[in-house]
Amino acid sequence: MLNELIANQRRPLLIVISGPSGVGKDTVLQRMMERQLPFHFVVTATTRAIRPNEVDGKDYIFVTRDQFAEMIEQGELLEHAFVYNDYKGIPRQQVQQALASGRDVVMRLDVQGAETIRKLFPEALLIFLTTQSEVELVERLRLRRTEEPENLKLRIATARQELKRVDIFDYLVVNPDQRLDNTVDTIMAIINAEHYRTHPRVVQL
Amino acid sequence: MLNELIANQRRPLLIVISGPSGVGKDTVLQRMMERQLPFHFVVTATTRAIRPNEVDGKDYIFVTRDQFAEMIEQGELLEHAFVYNDYKGIPRQQVQQALASGRDVVMRLDVQGAETIRKLFPEALLIFLTTQSEVELVERLRLRRTEEPENLKLRIATARQELKRVDIFDYLVVNPDQRLDNTVDTIMAIINAEHYRTHPRVVQL
Repeated sequence: MLNELIANQRRPLLIVISGPSGVGKDTVLQRMMERQLPFHFVVTATTRAIRPNEVDGKDYIFVTRDQFAEMIEQGELLEHAFVYNDYKGIPRQQVQQALASGRDVVMRLDVQGAETIRKLFPEALLIFLTTQSEVELVERLRLRRTEEPENLKLRIATARQELKRVDIFDYLVVNPDQRLDNTVDTIMAIINAEHYRTHPRVVQL
Repeated sequence: MLNELIANQRRPLLIVISGPSGVGKDTVLQRMMERQLPFHFVVTATTRAIRPNEVDGKDYIFVTRDQFAEMIEQGELLEHAFVYNDYKGIPRQQVQQALASGRDVVMRLDVQGAETIRKLFPEALLIFLTTQSEVELVERLRLRRTEEPENLKLRIATARQELKRVDIFDYLVVNPDQRLDNTVDTIMAIINAEHYRTHPRVVQL
């Protein structure tokens, strides 16, 4: 029995990093990638336009709406959502291959996407990034300045709703401004610890 | 709600480090203490004779059998057990005071003691130390040489039984020979991560 339990601990985890718009999910994922951790970071498929400095296949897989529709039809997406006028989806095969190779899979998802993954794979590891308070979250969204006024209002309303969904997540990590490396250290401790559970989360894809 | 969840994460944990005889519990605890971690390490009360180099009140609280009986009578022990011809017990007030001060409490217990704590405090954090295999455990017990032959046989039989109790523990950590610091790092990651659970283990003593 001991051998079996120890072997189970080496099986890869399906890890979702989520949280409301404005908490800094992208920055946290970016720093995790910079550290060259032995994870597979999922590259999301999206219908939105490529931005300057973005690389197709690295930052996102950029597809047309027709291509995206085809991916849905063929069941090629693990989950997908319509967010802020664009479609985003997680390529199923990419995740399967990474898990088969034994690597932990890390994906960034909005709260809606995380909820879908929780329903499909109850054994996924869900980490919720948040600010210290709702006030701080709104403040951060305002400071971004990249938004049209009507978009900002929509994002704030959505973020407030998303904060209320924290209950379905396994871990809650506050991501304070200027302390990005602490946040990444905490996420690493969580992933590390999860591999030592007597009964680790084993995902069947 | 967010504030309440974040505040709960700061509440102290009741941590049990356990595992069969021979896995190196004492050495692991010793190294944790050397690192001057901000935990309260429980000092166990025992009826066994003090050994050279041991300090009363630091290594153990050494008491007579009469004193121990009195402690049981007065309900002063959180749990107690008769192990290898001696009594050992966890002073309740010591644990209460440490938790009240906000520090995580770490105690070393044999598997029988860990089971008792699990029943009394389902929210305790139980970590099971083990060797890579049963064969290795037996080998380590043999190499100790500190045992009388009949004691050794008893310890091996007990250790084999204890390995089967791993199920009630939250985490299973292999403690390989010569890699003590890795083991301590893993335990630290576990304790760290547990403080970020959305619903942390809150013990009511």
